[in-house]
Amino acid sequence: MDRIFNFSAGPANLPLAVLEQAREELLSWQGRGLSVMEDSHRGRQFIELAEQSERDLRELLGISDEYAVLFMQGGATLQFAMIPMTLAREGQGVDYLITGHWGRKASSEAAKLRPLRVVADGEALQYRSVPARGEWALGGDAAYFHYTANETLHGLEIDPPPDVDHAPLVCDMSSTLLSRPIPVDRFGLIYACAQKNLGPAGVTVVIVRRDLLERVPEDTPLAFNYRRIAAAGSMLNTPATFSWYVASLVFRWVAGQGGVAGMAERNRRKAMRVYDYIDGSDFYANHVAPEWRSWMNVPFTLADPELNGAFLEDSEAQGLYGLKGHRAVGGMRASIYNAMPEEGVEALVGFMEEFERKA
Amino acid sequence: MDRIFNFSAGPANLPLAVLEQAREELLSWQGRGLSVMEDSHRGRQFIELAEQSERDLRELLGISDEYAVLFMQGGATLQFAMIPMTLAREGQGVDYLITGHWGRKASSEAAKLRPLRVVADGEALQYRSVPARGEWALGGDAAYFHYTANETLHGLEIDPPPDVDHAPLVCDMSSTLLSRPIPVDRFGLIYACAQKNLGPAGVTVVIVRRDLLERVPEDTPLAFNYRRIAAAGSMLNTPATFSWYVASLVFRWVAGQGGVAGMAERNRRKAMRVYDYIDGSDFYANHVAPEWRSWMNVPFTLADPELNGAFLEDSEAQGLYGLKGHRAVGGMRASIYNAMPEEGVEALVGFMEEFERKA
Repeated sequence: MDRIFNFSAGPANLPLAVLEQAREELLSWQGRGLSVMEDSHRGRQFIELAEQSERDLRELLGISDEYAVLFMQGGATLQFAMIPMTLAREGQGVDYLITGHWGRKASSEAAKLRPLRVVADGEALQYRSVPARGEWALGGDAAYFHYTANETLHGLEIDPPPDVDHAPLVCDMSSTLLSRPIPVDRFGLIYACAQKNLGPAGVTVVIVRRDLLERVPEDTPLAFNYRRIAAAGSMLNTPATFSWYVASLVFRWVAGQGGVAGMAERNRRKAMRVYDYIDGSDFYANHVAPEWRSWMNVPFTLADPELNGAFLEDSEAQGLYGLKGHRAVGGMRASIYNAMPEEGVEALVGFMEEFERKA
Repeated sequence: MDRIFNFSAGPANLPLAVLEQAREELLSWQGRGLSVMEDSHRGRQFIELAEQSERDLRELLGISDEYAVLFMQGGATLQFAMIPMTLAREGQGVDYLITGHWGRKASSEAAKLRPLRVVADGEALQYRSVPARGEWALGGDAAYFHYTANETLHGLEIDPPPDVDHAPLVCDMSSTLLSRPIPVDRFGLIYACAQKNLGPAGVTVVIVRRDLLERVPEDTPLAFNYRRIAAAGSMLNTPATFSWYVASLVFRWVAGQGGVAGMAERNRRKAMRVYDYIDGSDFYANHVAPEWRSWMNVPFTLADPELNGAFLEDSEAQGLYGLKGHRAVGGMRASIYNAMPEEGVEALVGFMEEFERKA
């Protein structure tokens, strides 16, 4: 069967060239007669892969030596707990800006561990816009300020980072990292699960300013101990080697596409193509304020929700997969991460036009 | 290049048939035009895979409905912290039997969180034997009793489980699970990282008696919350889908090999072949007491350590990979997990004979 266009929110599509290379060498990595899955993480070849992938990511994002780069397991959900556990002292407040489902989840996890201050919550705006900066209630003594760069459910993206300097910026960049340039040196800690733009599920990238590592309490268990993980080159225990390997191939692929500047240009163009079409139609709608619209996830509704089932069925029959919106918000969602080619977006818009015409 | 025989301790070799199937469908899983890596974990097909893999594992190990089966991330290292955090109350003691490197590590992680009672430590026996049962100092009020079924560095294996009933048995079975039958109903919680007998690194299996889930405090962060993970069918957040998929193929492969009884018979035969050869030689030695010798990891030394370098170089040149012992104990180690075929063991013994003859 031909490959389909996969609009899933994550795990998401991967570059075809990456999958082809992984397939090509699946039984014999580097011609050595074993799969990369089977190789020791302590062996010379895997350590070279790990080090090279870190160098590639640093190069792509312009990450200075002031920052450690970690490859972990556990997804953003583990970070939700690790960050308050290790970067805030017992009893010290933490600031969270909530602009959608994931910011809410991160904040409710933090609230289990440290006094939570919700700086602002876009719920009253139905998460279609970000509360005005002038209305935020920042805590002067906060251990850090957390926000979610891209809300995958609500299709809302914050870029550039908010103008906040009372505490280190901590950001969930799960669906942003590698999709556009980011000013890393504005941040204290950035984390991103891989299954959007970086690779398969199972690996989580953490970029952390080294001075913050000193905050990690000495008796922190190894699994949560950023400082010890950094000191061990992310090899404190066995990493998810295959996921890391695929991520390393994705980094090379991004570099070959003109780096994050090249990705940004293409991602902006892809997103605008869909938003422009939706805005010009009475049949489809996206309610996010234009200045906050995500380049990665385009949620949209049909004027007649009765047609939702037919839309999903017909789109899938035409090889457009994963367009169903998250159950928390309903409707449709097209996730158009780095690996979605422009032809996929054209196919989507073409299908939307045809569906509207036939309806 | 031909496939080599891989004696690495983990990540370890995988069945060739599993790798071939993974390669075959890497670009189009189930003929659907996308990789399993790219498919949504919330989609029908992946959920079917997840449910089927759980049924297969239950069938292989005879796991009753009294137990939940979880597929997690983070390896044994995350379990080292989660177990004391969630199964013991603040201030409640926990019993650890230490019979090698990994038991020591598990206990030192637990000590960061709960009052640790070391029931016995085999260090004085150089971890060549397990301290006699009569000398163990058990704590009557312990939340649980923890031990390590197989010490991969020291090549020491405990089977059947120790005769302990004052507290639920908790066991690190990272290199034991699926290698032989185990009496699951003797245990409170069993955990195993995948990269020995179950699949690639990135997935960790936890088998936990449901009544113990009630011990997990309500405010436990989701990433550590066995109860919530069980209730969500291990889909509380995005699992490491590809690693889980490969594990599901391995479960089918084990079933096709006669299940765990078949694996045990073959594993015993493989291990005895190596131990018998070593015991009949003055050139090689294994110092573990015969009744505690591991079927999975056979550490051995050369009478003349000056020859270690040549042994490793020559063996690798002959396609026998990963025989170097762990740096903490030195010497050699042959890890012969489920996926190591008997021909691999014959090739190893043949090489050892030849090396001895030429030396």
